[in-house]
Amino acid sequence: MGISNIENICIKAKAAAAKLSVVGTAVKDKALLAMADAFEKNINQILGANKKDLEAAQASGITGAMYKRLELNEKKIAQMADGVRQIAALRDPVGETIEGYIRPNGMEVRKIRTPIGVIGIIYESRPNVTADAAALCLKAGNAVILRGGSEAINSNITITRLINESIIPLGIPEGAVQIIETTDRAAAMELMKMKPYIDCLIPRGGKGLIKTVVENSTIPVIEHADGNCHMYIDDSADLAMAEELAFNAKVQNPGVCNAMETLLVSEQIAEKFLPKICARLQAAGVEIRADEKARSIVSGLKEATEEDWETEYLDLILALKVVSGIDEAIAHIARYGSGHTEAIVTENYTAANRFTREVDAAAVFVNVSTRFTDGYEFGKGAEMGISTQKLHARGPMGVEEITTYKYVVTGNGQLRS
Amino acid sequence: MGISNIENICIKAKAAAAKLSVVGTAVKDKALLAMADAFEKNINQILGANKKDLEAAQASGITGAMYKRLELNEKKIAQMADGVRQIAALRDPVGETIEGYIRPNGMEVRKIRTPIGVIGIIYESRPNVTADAAALCLKAGNAVILRGGSEAINSNITITRLINESIIPLGIPEGAVQIIETTDRAAAMELMKMKPYIDCLIPRGGKGLIKTVVENSTIPVIEHADGNCHMYIDDSADLAMAEELAFNAKVQNPGVCNAMETLLVSEQIAEKFLPKICARLQAAGVEIRADEKARSIVSGLKEATEEDWETEYLDLILALKVVSGIDEAIAHIARYGSGHTEAIVTENYTAANRFTREVDAAAVFVNVSTRFTDGYEFGKGAEMGISTQKLHARGPMGVEEITTYKYVVTGNGQLRS
Repeated sequence: MGISNIENICIKAKAAAAKLSVVGTAVKDKALLAMADAFEKNINQILGANKKDLEAAQASGITGAMYKRLELNEKKIAQMADGVRQIAALRDPVGETIEGYIRPNGMEVRKIRTPIGVIGIIYESRPNVTADAAALCLKAGNAVILRGGSEAINSNITITRLINESIIPLGIPEGAVQIIETTDRAAAMELMKMKPYIDCLIPRGGKGLIKTVVENSTIPVIEHADGNCHMYIDDSADLAMAEELAFNAKVQNPGVCNAMETLLVSEQIAEKFLPKICARLQAAGVEIRADEKARSIVSGLKEATEEDWETEYLDLILALKVVSGIDEAIAHIARYGSGHTEAIVTENYTAANRFTREVDAAAVFVNVSTRFTDGYEFGKGAEMGISTQKLHARGPMGVEEITTYKYVVTGNGQLRS
Repeated sequence: MGISNIENICIKAKAAAAKLSVVGTAVKDKALLAMADAFEKNINQILGANKKDLEAAQASGITGAMYKRLELNEKKIAQMADGVRQIAALRDPVGETIEGYIRPNGMEVRKIRTPIGVIGIIYESRPNVTADAAALCLKAGNAVILRGGSEAINSNITITRLINESIIPLGIPEGAVQIIETTDRAAAMELMKMKPYIDCLIPRGGKGLIKTVVENSTIPVIEHADGNCHMYIDDSADLAMAEELAFNAKVQNPGVCNAMETLLVSEQIAEKFLPKICARLQAAGVEIRADEKARSIVSGLKEATEEDWETEYLDLILALKVVSGIDEAIAHIARYGSGHTEAIVTENYTAANRFTREVDAAAVFVNVSTRFTDGYEFGKGAEMGISTQKLHARGPMGVEEITTYKYVVTGNGQLRS
């Protein structure tokens, strides 16, 4: 048997990764700026390819949020380019001394940040992930293998071609950014078994995709999973602020993982707080499913069931519960939270500290909308995904989170006795 | 069906982890000191249990290095206690601010170190791993599930009992340190599927064990794999220092993963260097398997085959190759190295820098014996293992390497627009 197309891509990626790991910062940053320029200069090529994807999507009945995620326009492409320029402006993570110290025997131990090697990303819908992933991996010195969804294949192929046309002439090794053009399931399954070549696999998409990758990959996986996010309004909250935060967390973009799904309200302020926020949410089209106490304060709310506490709606639906205070809020989050983003609104110093210490999630917020858990908002330029697991990286993954380190130990003849 | 014994242990561990994550530093350190005292006070109980293991080992024909690893004595137990005291003296990693900054919208982003949760460790032979793993996990706020080898089961059970008798009365939650007493394969296989309860699984032992865990675990694994370690003697090396380093790296403890397996020598100094080092190694009982050039300089050496470059001997055997210089040395290591520890001996500044930058391994050494890749030697008190993978942790894993982090973001009403 010959070498398959997928294995061939992996072999090229591994060879490119070895070269890319020692490419200097100036070369990488120039390449990133050229990549950003290429997106803007060739906007019509990108929009033309995207049009094909959109037509195919319409023909196969894709509508609503998925169609919107697939769609590119001038503004989205300008944002794509801007994200790449921000990544170029970040400090190169490769070579950073994370820590360093001298041992009693005189040897110097330094922990130095290095690229991981080859990263595979399996994603759905949004073609701008192609640009984000390529740019982040390039900055961190990693080769990347892109495996986007079939629905965005034309857009993804065009974006990848523009990337390579702009970066290879500037000294980035061929094979550093590659796309898998076959979008059938078999190709993805084969990719998940390429452990000799790929150091890390990042699935980014719906639950089905994540589950398939976790169950089938022999390569270490960084999961980008559910966001069943809560906001707890404490007794001591500034209620005007709480109303704005809760409204923003639910309504500003309900279809994403960092949107609030359950609102927890302390019973001491429930009577004052609930009527206003419920009216405002309902006016914005939010369906509220509430526990008994909340329904006794605001009439006409739908009854919440056990399933509602567990659900990531990704929609204009909100679960609402009145709790006795911070203890019950923390317990509810420990039981139902998915470890993504959990927020408290409070003016009480001790409550804020307890919440941030005791709640176990990738991101724990005080007086900030849950919607801020995002690589761009955290200052990382873009993100490879948001990790909800605890190993390697947690929360938004930028360039640092796709690096590893090595120990460099120097001495003058130290022997072990 | 009822809950199995293994699942029951996992449930207890998860509950204990939640409690342990907020136990203060003073309580944890007091418990660690009590643990160390308990080992020394009850040395006869430990030696008695170990005697049973040793008798069983003799009966089943276990000899040599494995018997030695199994054997405890007063000195080893004192070292065990000393390691635990060193861990107590380390700064608590939990709560450390890894980085922190303010975003343009005024929200403050902090990356705070936290425990991982529940760690499972599957290991072989050495009963002191029981104490090291329990102490490191306790310090880092993690619950641990210990699954040692059947050959050390009496020692491991006794050590675990002494740990719990000393730490639980001081405020460490029950279930924080548990041992699986059934040593059959089915129990280990069941443990590897306990993803809802265990956050991270660390296999520590021979190749067969590692392979079984990697292939069967649904829990993220941190591999402690082979050490096919090289030492390259550069043209510009101080040859007296090089001789001491090469001898120490091969002979001081040949049965461990950080011992040198292949010696690479620059041809410019081979005629001067090889006769002395070969004679000295041979006098210490080392069998040398050499390439043609080396055999043309030192007569009577066995011929090396391709397999020798690939082999981790863990024995008094050495592969020897004369290379044209640093380029060939780096290329040989890239091809055959296992990513554990690679060393150069040189007085040339540029050669040292090229080697540390270009060689991709957990530990890259200049003028230091490969034998120093070790948690204790790196100042970590002890180690959970030495990771040869690139995700999460690389090299010796101490308390920091068994933590994760969360983002704590605080503000005053920031909304996403």
